[in-house]
Amino acid sequence: MHFVAALDDVPEMRGVLGLFEGVVTGAADGYGRMADKPAATLLHLGPGLGNGVANLHNARKAKTPIVNIVGDHATYHKQYDAQLESDIESIARNVSPSFVRWCKEPAHVGEDAVETVRAAYGPPGQVATLILPADVSWTEGATSAPGATRPTRREPSSENVELVAKALRSGEPTGILVGGSACRRAALELVARLSASTGCKVLCETFPARLERGAGIPPVERIAYLAEFAMTQLDGLEHLMLVDVKAPVSFFAYPDKASYLVPDGCEVHVLADPSEDAVAALTMLCDAVGASGDGVRASAERPSKPSGALTAQTVCEALGALLPEGAIVSDEGNTSGLFASRATEGAPPHDWLCLTGGAIGQGLPVAVGAAVACPDRRVVALEADGSAMYTLQSLWTMAREGLDVTTIVFANRSYAVLNMELNRVGATSGGAKAKQMLDISRPQIDFVSLAKGVGVPAVRPDDAESFTAELERALNTPGPSLLEAVIPSFM
Amino acid sequence: MHFVAALDDVPEMRGVLGLFEGVVTGAADGYGRMADKPAATLLHLGPGLGNGVANLHNARKAKTPIVNIVGDHATYHKQYDAQLESDIESIARNVSPSFVRWCKEPAHVGEDAVETVRAAYGPPGQVATLILPADVSWTEGATSAPGATRPTRREPSSENVELVAKALRSGEPTGILVGGSACRRAALELVARLSASTGCKVLCETFPARLERGAGIPPVERIAYLAEFAMTQLDGLEHLMLVDVKAPVSFFAYPDKASYLVPDGCEVHVLADPSEDAVAALTMLCDAVGASGDGVRASAERPSKPSGALTAQTVCEALGALLPEGAIVSDEGNTSGLFASRATEGAPPHDWLCLTGGAIGQGLPVAVGAAVACPDRRVVALEADGSAMYTLQSLWTMAREGLDVTTIVFANRSYAVLNMELNRVGATSGGAKAKQMLDISRPQIDFVSLAKGVGVPAVRPDDAESFTAELERALNTPGPSLLEAVIPSFM
Repeated sequence: MHFVAALDDVPEMRGVLGLFEGVVTGAADGYGRMADKPAATLLHLGPGLGNGVANLHNARKAKTPIVNIVGDHATYHKQYDAQLESDIESIARNVSPSFVRWCKEPAHVGEDAVETVRAAYGPPGQVATLILPADVSWTEGATSAPGATRPTRREPSSENVELVAKALRSGEPTGILVGGSACRRAALELVARLSASTGCKVLCETFPARLERGAGIPPVERIAYLAEFAMTQLDGLEHLMLVDVKAPVSFFAYPDKASYLVPDGCEVHVLADPSEDAVAALTMLCDAVGASGDGVRASAERPSKPSGALTAQTVCEALGALLPEGAIVSDEGNTSGLFASRATEGAPPHDWLCLTGGAIGQGLPVAVGAAVACPDRRVVALEADGSAMYTLQSLWTMAREGLDVTTIVFANRSYAVLNMELNRVGATSGGAKAKQMLDISRPQIDFVSLAKGVGVPAVRPDDAESFTAELERALNTPGPSLLEAVIPSFM
Repeated sequence: MHFVAALDDVPEMRGVLGLFEGVVTGAADGYGRMADKPAATLLHLGPGLGNGVANLHNARKAKTPIVNIVGDHATYHKQYDAQLESDIESIARNVSPSFVRWCKEPAHVGEDAVETVRAAYGPPGQVATLILPADVSWTEGATSAPGATRPTRREPSSENVELVAKALRSGEPTGILVGGSACRRAALELVARLSASTGCKVLCETFPARLERGAGIPPVERIAYLAEFAMTQLDGLEHLMLVDVKAPVSFFAYPDKASYLVPDGCEVHVLADPSEDAVAALTMLCDAVGASGDGVRASAERPSKPSGALTAQTVCEALGALLPEGAIVSDEGNTSGLFASRATEGAPPHDWLCLTGGAIGQGLPVAVGAAVACPDRRVVALEADGSAMYTLQSLWTMAREGLDVTTIVFANRSYAVLNMELNRVGATSGGAKAKQMLDISRPQIDFVSLAKGVGVPAVRPDDAESFTAELERALNTPGPSLLEAVIPSFM
C-alpha cells in the first residue's frame, strides 16, 4: 500500500494496473524483452506470487530482467498465521532460484532495492525477487542507495573462440545454434557472414525470447518443436557451436525417443554462454576465420492478400501481407501459428517474441508489456483460443492504457496440441471421456463478446477477404482491437 | 496424458474440464467442502501448479481434503532443463507443507495414490500433492493398492473438557469460538445448548470453510474482518474456548494496532483441535456442565422483496427474500457482501462457504465444485467485480456441465477493500496515480457480455424490483446464469 501511495512522489514511475497477477508478470516480461531493462511487478503475498508464477517461469526461461516485488505481512504479524500467511520464499525460489531478498529493515530498503535491480540485470537477466514486509514499508528510516547501472556482459574467452574457429576451419559439417542475445540483428549479421564464408548451417533455438527478423535481416531456421523434425535439422552435423544457448533438447520426453537432440558423435562447443558478449565473440570468430562481407539477408517479399476460406494458413498470409515495419509479434498461436513464421519472413523488419517457457497464457500479457515499452510500434498478439483464456484480463489493460495491440485469436476450439501429444505419448486407450478433456468447443467461446466485455473492439470476419480488410483497419487504428478467426483444427 | 486417457476405463471417475488451473483447484476445494471427501486435480508441471496455488492456498486454510496431482516430465528428461522444467516441489511445499509425494516407480503408483488420498483426509483435511512423472505413467508394471478408508477424528481429551467445564462453571465471562467442523449443525446445536445453559457467548471464525445456518439452526456471530470490531466482540471475556479453530488474529497488521485479538488477561482453552472430534468434545462438555435442552435457533424470517435503487443492501435483501432451502452460498462478495449474512439469517437452512485464505478468485471456482458435489441443490455465488475477474473462466465450466449456479456480481467498479486498506495502513500520501491503481471503472467491465462470451445467460437489471424478479427467475431455472448488479461503492 505504501508502494502504491508513493507512486505519486516518483514521476518517473508509471503504474500499470492488471486485473490478475499473470497479466502483471507477463507484461513485465514483455517490457523487459523490448526495453532491455527491468520493469517492477507488485504482487501480494504468496497467493499473488502464485498467480504470477507461470509468466515469471516464462520470463526466467527468457532470461528477462524483472524486479519482482512481493508485499508481505508485517514482520511481527507472520507468527500469527493469518489467512494470507504462507511460505512465500518457497514459491519465489521456483522463479528466482538465484536471487530472493527478504527486506527486513527500513534502513536497508534502498540498498536491497538496488541489489535487486542489479541482480535482475545479470547478465544474464533474471527474475530477482524482493519480499517487502508491510512494517518495513511503513516505518520511517529508509535511506536511498546509489542506482544500479546496467552491467556489461563478460568478454568472451579467446580460447573458446579459437577452438570453435578450428572446428570451422576443419571443413567438417558445422552448425551454429543461436539463442538469447544472439537472436538480435547485430549477432545475426555476424552469423550470416560466418555462414557465407564457411558454409556452416545456422539454426536458432525453438522459442527465442526476441528474434529480430524480416526483410534485410539474415533469416534463421528455428529448431522444430517436434523432436523428430529437429533431429532432421541437426542430422549430419559433426560440430555444433552454441551462442548464448544450450544444446537442443526435446520439449517433452516420449517413449523410446531421445531427449537430447545433438546427433551422436557431434561435438558441442560453447562460443559464448549467456553471461558473455555474443556479438564480441562472433566478431572475434569472424576475424579468426577471415570471414568478411555480408551474408544472406531475407528479401522483401510478402504473400498476396489471401482469399477464400479462413484457415490458419490464410490468417497467417493476411498477417504476412500486412505486418507493418517495426511491428512486435507476441506469438502464442501454438499449432495454428505454425504458418506465421514463414508468411512473415519477408515482411519489413520486426521482432518476434516466443513462448520461452511453455507456460501458456503468455501471449497477451507480453503484448501489453511490449506495447508499454515501445509506444511507437504496433504490437500483434497471435493467440490460440485455449491459451487466450488463461490471461484474457490483459485485454482490459490494453483498453485502459490505449495500447496499440492487435490481437488475432485462432479459434480452432480445441486443445489441438494436447490431442497431438495424447497420440504421441502412446496413450491410445483415450476414449470419449478423454477426448472431452481436450475439447473446448462446448460451449463455444465467443471472443468478440469477451473482448467487448473488457472494452476492446472486436470482430469475427467469416472469410479471408473480410479478415484481411479488418486486419488492415485494425493495424491502422490507434488502440487495441481483437479479431477472432474461427478456423478448422488440423490436429 | 495417460491419466486423461485412463478416464474412460474408470466409470466412477468424472472428468470436469476447467480452462485455467485456478478454476480446477478452487472447484476441488468447493467439492471437498460439500462432499467431505477429496476431489483430484490434474495440473501440468510447475507453471500449472503455480496457476493453481491461490485456490490451493484457500483450500489449505479451509482444511479441505484435496488430492493434488501434478504431472511432471519423464524422470530421465528432467536433467535436460527443457522449457517447462522447474522446481515443482518448491511450489508444492507452499500448499502441501505436510505431504508432497514424488511417485518414482510404476510399481508404487497404486500405493502412492492411496497414501495421498489418506493424507488428504487427515484429519484435519489437507492438500496432499502427488507428483507423477510421465514415464512412471507410461511404463508397465503398476499395481493397485487397497483403497483408503475415511479416517475418524481423534477422541477429545477428557482433561481438556474438564478444564473448560471448570471455566464455564466459574461464572466468569466466557466465549466459545467455533471453526472448521464445529461450524456444522450438530456442533452448533451443542454450542447453543451450552450457551443457553451457562450464558457463554458464541462466536465463529471470520471466514468459515462451511457454515450451516438459516431458520431452525442456531445462529452464530462471526468475528469481524476489521480488528477493532473484532476486539469489541471479544471485549470483557475472561475465558475463550476454542473448538476446531485457532485464537483470533487480525487479517492484516496495522501500525500501532494489535495483531493478536484475544483481550489481555483472557485465558484461552483448547476444547478440540482440528484433528479431534468436535461434536464428541462438545457432547462431553454438555454432560460435564449439565447442559441439556435446546438453545436459541434462528427464526424463519426473511426480508421483504426490496424496491428502489440497486445497492449492496437491496441486492442482499433480494437474496434473503428468495434464497431456496438447501442452497449453498459461495461468498466472495467482499465489501458489498457485508449485508448478505444478516439478510439471509432467517432464510431456510443453507450452507455458507467463505474466502478462507483471503486469496481472491475463489468464489466462482468453489461454486463450480459445490454444484458438482451437490447436483440437487442450488448454488449462489456472491462475487465482487474485482475478484470475479480472477477466475471468470469458471463460468464456462458452469455452462459446459449445466451446473445450477446463480452468480451475482456486485459491480462497484472499485477495489473497494483496497481503498479502505490504503487509508488504514496510514498511506495518506496517495495521490491521483495511487488512486488509479485501485480503480477498475475505466474501461467499464461488462459482465453480461463476458458471461455470454462463455455461454452463460446474463442480465443487468437496473433497479431492485427488476433485480428481484430476475433473481427469482434465475433461481428457478436449471443451469447457470449471472446477474450483474451495478451498485455504488461505500468505501
